[in-house]
Amino acid sequence: MGAPEIFGVPGDYNLQFLDHITHSSDMRWVGNANELNAAYMADGYARQKGFAAFVTTFGVGELSAVNGLGGSMAEHVPVLEIVGSPTTTVQNNHKLVHHTFGDGNFLRFEEAHRALGYEIAHLTAENAINEINRIAQYIFTTKKPAYINLPTDLVNIPVNIELKSDIHKLFEVDEKNNSDFEQYLVEKLEKANKLVVIAGHEAARFNLGSQIENFVKTNNIPLSVLGLGKGAVDETITQFIGTYNGELSDETTNKIVDQADTILLVGVKLTDSVTGAFTQSFGPSKTIALNYNEAVIFGTKYQGDYDFKQSLDYLATNKLSDSNTVAKLENHSKVTPTSANLTQKFYDEALEQFISSSDTFVAEQGTSFFGLSSNLLPKNAHFIGQPLWGSIGYSFPAMLGSQIANPESRNILSVGEGSLHLTIQEFGMAFREKLNPIIFIIDNSGYTVERIIHGMTEPYNDVPKLEYKLIPAAFGATEDQYLFQKVTTEEELAATMELARKTKDKMIVVQVIMGAKDAPETLVKMGQLFEKQNH
Amino acid sequence: MGAPEIFGVPGDYNLQFLDHITHSSDMRWVGNANELNAAYMADGYARQKGFAAFVTTFGVGELSAVNGLGGSMAEHVPVLEIVGSPTTTVQNNHKLVHHTFGDGNFLRFEEAHRALGYEIAHLTAENAINEINRIAQYIFTTKKPAYINLPTDLVNIPVNIELKSDIHKLFEVDEKNNSDFEQYLVEKLEKANKLVVIAGHEAARFNLGSQIENFVKTNNIPLSVLGLGKGAVDETITQFIGTYNGELSDETTNKIVDQADTILLVGVKLTDSVTGAFTQSFGPSKTIALNYNEAVIFGTKYQGDYDFKQSLDYLATNKLSDSNTVAKLENHSKVTPTSANLTQKFYDEALEQFISSSDTFVAEQGTSFFGLSSNLLPKNAHFIGQPLWGSIGYSFPAMLGSQIANPESRNILSVGEGSLHLTIQEFGMAFREKLNPIIFIIDNSGYTVERIIHGMTEPYNDVPKLEYKLIPAAFGATEDQYLFQKVTTEEELAATMELARKTKDKMIVVQVIMGAKDAPETLVKMGQLFEKQNH
Repeated sequence: MGAPEIFGVPGDYNLQFLDHITHSSDMRWVGNANELNAAYMADGYARQKGFAAFVTTFGVGELSAVNGLGGSMAEHVPVLEIVGSPTTTVQNNHKLVHHTFGDGNFLRFEEAHRALGYEIAHLTAENAINEINRIAQYIFTTKKPAYINLPTDLVNIPVNIELKSDIHKLFEVDEKNNSDFEQYLVEKLEKANKLVVIAGHEAARFNLGSQIENFVKTNNIPLSVLGLGKGAVDETITQFIGTYNGELSDETTNKIVDQADTILLVGVKLTDSVTGAFTQSFGPSKTIALNYNEAVIFGTKYQGDYDFKQSLDYLATNKLSDSNTVAKLENHSKVTPTSANLTQKFYDEALEQFISSSDTFVAEQGTSFFGLSSNLLPKNAHFIGQPLWGSIGYSFPAMLGSQIANPESRNILSVGEGSLHLTIQEFGMAFREKLNPIIFIIDNSGYTVERIIHGMTEPYNDVPKLEYKLIPAAFGATEDQYLFQKVTTEEELAATMELARKTKDKMIVVQVIMGAKDAPETLVKMGQLFEKQNH
Repeated sequence: MGAPEIFGVPGDYNLQFLDHITHSSDMRWVGNANELNAAYMADGYARQKGFAAFVTTFGVGELSAVNGLGGSMAEHVPVLEIVGSPTTTVQNNHKLVHHTFGDGNFLRFEEAHRALGYEIAHLTAENAINEINRIAQYIFTTKKPAYINLPTDLVNIPVNIELKSDIHKLFEVDEKNNSDFEQYLVEKLEKANKLVVIAGHEAARFNLGSQIENFVKTNNIPLSVLGLGKGAVDETITQFIGTYNGELSDETTNKIVDQADTILLVGVKLTDSVTGAFTQSFGPSKTIALNYNEAVIFGTKYQGDYDFKQSLDYLATNKLSDSNTVAKLENHSKVTPTSANLTQKFYDEALEQFISSSDTFVAEQGTSFFGLSSNLLPKNAHFIGQPLWGSIGYSFPAMLGSQIANPESRNILSVGEGSLHLTIQEFGMAFREKLNPIIFIIDNSGYTVERIIHGMTEPYNDVPKLEYKLIPAAFGATEDQYLFQKVTTEEELAATMELARKTKDKMIVVQVIMGAKDAPETLVKMGQLFEKQNH
């Protein structure tokens, strides 16, 4: 499935299985500091590479990772967790072994995963081949996470090798007859006077960016993207009108979306953090929503055969009879650094200029995402954020996973010091793996994103003050492996950015000092909207 | 419930609730680096103090903590998790808000917790008082963990204050008539020719140590304890015969247990890691097992009224007609340090000498626990281990929680560098809280406990090499806050121990260098037994 690196943490119920990874020439074990980090890292890797797997041990390991797999579930990321469990005999005899509740129940943890909606396989000697194939097909088809429980004694049981030749058949998609739907869809689209296309995360996961771009280019239709889906489409084409975020979008973006009579949503979920807290200007009566599993046209679900990818393939080559005009998106003005202390505003603008073609930009769901997700992405740049699940600490391991998945793309992370703190131990793995991303740590004395929402000066929004310049060496970096810079002014940030670009063979760690109350305007407004909606 | 410190991580669904903690004069918020650490810390705190609470946010927070609460479930620790969730309106309207799977389902995470067997309350304006009381009573009665889902809008709804005066009634235990059982029990005990008492973790949780000690002292009965339960009884009394661990017990212990015709198990669970992989010399036909929820006499569950605590209260004052003789337990010989390189064996012996009365000794479930749990504990010393759940990384935050719970008892942690890595970021909190435990980090180049079980030289048992001397300062310690020592020889360890005792006003961090393959004999034998049982 195209993911040679496998993440995770060893445990005595998975060690025998790990042998089969470390002894294979086409797989590589990348051990993590803990299981949650492994799950985050697999998620980041899968966003780059289309699939990822990680291994945990029974009970303690899988429960530590469950929030990471939750993110993959929420944001539709194809990640497989393989859980090594006690031998079939131990399970069948309900033995009181470690990593259980000591009650002989070996299905509890699996049941908890089932309650969360993950696709589950519990392997036995009899069902192993079929179940593994079923899970592979499920992940390939849905791009959603799945979970395999692998009793440790099964690891060394030979399987029917004959089945191997059929493996490619698993990935032959059952072709649906989508042509009725295509006619129906085009008919509706033809009727639109002012059409806008908005892409979402499923478009990214199903790799439909070029189809969408072709469609809007051929028909000159304004194109937007949600923060949950950022990176799905080329933002440098003429038709791109900016990232949509409800009332909090840029003026031009807002105007075009507000004036549209029809919105084509491609793989979109309209969640609070990417719609300016549900302030989108359109309701179901204006939207044609194509998702991976259904098409909903003006509020009514299409009942016939429907295929997501085929529909987009069709649109990609379709010339509608009418065409739209697109307001030219003005380039954001270039910023010029001064000796002034850094502000979030300057930082956000400087980052927009800094990100280059083919970079991967990762923004933690805090001040980073809220400030940076409306920036224009250069052509071929990747973007990773987690605005729906929003698990604090996700971005650092996810970025490392993405960096391993695609060594050609330099990863640039923007993360607050409060968030980094949750998963900071992966620096150890990062230096062992000799990864050289650029990491901006916004050191703003606590959880600023929370301060904006509630409790501006409350002590619960404080975090311990770390000494970031010591972090790389403490986590095992040799001197030639990293470059640390602390920046407090605009000019220092600009100089550091220049240095970072030139220094390709080191990890760059930048401590960016900002005010505790300094937050992107979008976040401040979002905070007010959240507060209003909660009372 | 006697736990003024509350742990956790803020999130926008719990911030309003946290105000009620930070604005209360009788509660104190102790924020953690992440939710799993918070759960571990609460567990350690509860083992000292009899109760602990921590707060997480909906979805991401609670799922990050679920493995920590799993440990409390497995090992019977009274911990309450309070999960701040979206407002009742948001939940009822199935809004696609952040920290959900974006499917309008707000019960998923709670259901996953229910599948794990945790006691659950989902608060509403109507049921809040009764449900909170029910949960309090549940925790008080069972000493098990529970989970409260608190929609954020409920936080500011006034409750019926009249109910407050009845709060103490919650903790009046419904007195069962236990006298029939007491007669029955004593009748069985009188028949024993050679009786042995073994205490377990429920004896510790229900605080029955002194009852057990009185019973064995009055009747001169040999007393043992399982690793899961270590610390439950005074190990300095004449009747104490050592920690029982099946075939892997010390010779004296084994002999006495093997010769017994009746074993009284008090709050015991016979799990693999504390019975030398199920090599205990007795079966149900020899045991009288008193647990918190049932009494099983020679394999048959007692069907009448039964109360755990009353039974022990009764035994405490009971003089059986016959009495046993106890072989005098020889004191372990004192070790004398040389200039030789440190071995696990010397380390384990030196630690036994080092632990003093009133210390709390915390052993990670790796080489530390396997080597150290058979050591004799001084009077009034506490012991924290996690041999049933065995979650790697648990011991460091648990020790910090225990240190906060009982500042008078100096906490001493023994942890491998592989384990510490999982939860290392709590050093930030530890220095902020100005905690001064003594931490021995066994730096033995990876997961030695796993190497012993399987994959001695496999790369999956390696961990990144950290620079431990930089860790305290990297996590924000000022120079006067800590003392770091690296020791490679017996003499260096002895000198450091002496220095650590004298230095009460600093955290002591000791990097203890040992061989990658150097493990306690108990662990080596246990590894062989595990391997045998798994094949």
